Amino acid sequence: MRATTIHGTRDIRLSEVPDPVITKPTDAIVKVVAGCICGSDLWPYRGENPISEGSTIGHECIGVVEAVGAEVRTVKPGDFVVVPFDHCDNTCVHCAAGMQAACVNLGFTVSGQGEYALVNQADGSLVKTEGAPDPALLPSLLALADVMPTGWHAAVSAGVRPGGTAVVVGDGAVGLCGVLAARQLGAERIIAMSRHEPRQKIATAFGATDIVSVRGREATEAVLELTNGIGADAVLECVGTDASMKTAFHAARPGSTVGFVGVPHGVVLPVQTMFGRNVGLAGGMAPVRKYLPELLGLVLDGSIEPGKVFDMTLALDDVAEGYRAMDERRAIKVMLQP
Amino acid sequence: MRATTIHGTRDIRLSEVPDPVITKPTDAIVKVVAGCICGSDLWPYRGENPISEGSTIGHECIGVVEAVGAEVRTVKPGDFVVVPFDHCDNTCVHCAAGMQAACVNLGFTVSGQGEYALVNQADGSLVKTEGAPDPALLPSLLALADVMPTGWHAAVSAGVRPGGTAVVVGDGAVGLCGVLAARQLGAERIIAMSRHEPRQKIATAFGATDIVSVRGREATEAVLELTNGIGADAVLECVGTDASMKTAFHAARPGSTVGFVGVPHGVVLPVQTMFGRNVGLAGGMAPVRKYLPELLGLVLDGSIEPGKVFDMTLALDDVAEGYRAMDERRAIKVMLQP
Repeated sequence: MRATTIHGTRDIRLSEVPDPVITKPTDAIVKVVAGCICGSDLWPYRGENPISEGSTIGHECIGVVEAVGAEVRTVKPGDFVVVPFDHCDNTCVHCAAGMQAACVNLGFTVSGQGEYALVNQADGSLVKTEGAPDPALLPSLLALADVMPTGWHAAVSAGVRPGGTAVVVGDGAVGLCGVLAARQLGAERIIAMSRHEPRQKIATAFGATDIVSVRGREATEAVLELTNGIGADAVLECVGTDASMKTAFHAARPGSTVGFVGVPHGVVLPVQTMFGRNVGLAGGMAPVRKYLPELLGLVLDGSIEPGKVFDMTLALDDVAEGYRAMDERRAIKVMLQP
Repeated sequence: MRATTIHGTRDIRLSEVPDPVITKPTDAIVKVVAGCICGSDLWPYRGENPISEGSTIGHECIGVVEAVGAEVRTVKPGDFVVVPFDHCDNTCVHCAAGMQAACVNLGFTVSGQGEYALVNQADGSLVKTEGAPDPALLPSLLALADVMPTGWHAAVSAGVRPGGTAVVVGDGAVGLCGVLAARQLGAERIIAMSRHEPRQKIATAFGATDIVSVRGREATEAVLELTNGIGADAVLECVGTDASMKTAFHAARPGSTVGFVGVPHGVVLPVQTMFGRNVGLAGGMAPVRKYLPELLGLVLDGSIEPGKVFDMTLALDDVAEGYRAMDERRAIKVMLQP
């Protein structure tokens, strides 16, 4: 099949690779209808994460079930499904406790930017739609593979509650979905940190009531000014750098929680500040399947439209241009169609 | 008055110092009936925290109100009171949100190991008993000034819930009170980490169901073995060192929270582990006043007896011996009577 492979810093190619095959009775293969490029794919693209040269890349996709293993019961060939980037059996002790990201049978989508993707634990992972969805819904369904549940996990982990104030650090697709999650969870005031006008517009469309377009200490001061010197009731950290994390902790009111979902890169947590101000940290890799049924319902009934984060759609053949566009911040998030 | 002063590493003296005086209408002065030495006092005693030579030390006490400022309404001279180590107005925006440790008028007891202590924000801070308490209750009342509410804060921050499993890292007075808190909050299985038999006995009396007497990786493995490989539902970190914190994170099950109350010393939080396993961190300096009315009720009705952590009582004159005994781990916690 054709699939995206990574060969070095800023070296992304569309290659011919072996088709995935079912090796376990709980596997499924999905024919990809749409995949996309994640902000986290830019870490290896920029040479900031180690890579295995020539390996496939891409962990987000939606599509149609092509084949299933002998034990798969809940989906069958022809079903349209959302594929959580993290696969789980949804029955183990950690899944049962609501932490599917720690499933004892954890797996990941590894060829979401390709024609086919292997899904481990198909029954536990895949969520299907009734029939083929309206093509207009595809971007929002694709957002359910990762960025929307990840933004949701940030909001849930930060303890967003009705009537409260939420700050969202990060204006990537996950941060924007965090704004949407905070609104859906009832936050009354949502302060989005963004310096980029197109992203500010989406943040506002998603429910942000205030935009802070400065960084660092100035951003903290802006949040304190907007909150009468108190700080935010909940802070969503959707970047993963040391600077963004520090901004998050300074924006949080005493006794609150920073919900973090940006894979940490060079982060040194400010433990003395956390202790002295009683600001906690919660979150991590999102248990996508935990939230997926609820979020799918919200997409299908029109309550949320996370697909707005896709501002560029390319044919799979043009994937390298998609990476360039995101790397140069010409695009927020790129959808790829095989 | 006579009060304990610190002059250098392992140089603790009983000195004559000026009596505290009321300077604000919200102040009160308490004649100390009993004070004590805190594990955190050992940091400056051992030269691991900077000191101001000759300054008074001791932040825990109970006693009788001696004098009050013009605006104090809830206590009067002659009342017996518990003095939270952190003073608060109990009305500001942070207090109203239940984070009294971040009160905008925060103050601290600074001469609890002396004859008199100044209390800022007397109305917001002090909790009185009905009449003079039974002398047998004094140790447990004294424990309410810091260690019991601090252990309680660890348990609350860790999210201890009825029926769950809790691990307590640290067998000092706070850790032992953490065991007591976990039991009171309904944990079904309480694993106390302790290598010292006298402390193990108190932990068991306080409700520990299991004792782990090894450290580091072995301790983590012991917890995993006791929990069918799952890890604990809640972990209380009551030490504050890097090693104890790492043990806490490894003992916690995915999706759980480490509640931390030991003042961090040299701690580098394992952010990748926290992210990858979705183990959060919450806690910090305890909002003592928040918990004090409830805990006082539990002491007075006999539900809890945190005073068991005091295994040595000395006259105030012998305070230096009290520090030596705690430094050498001959005593768990030393009560001082002026």
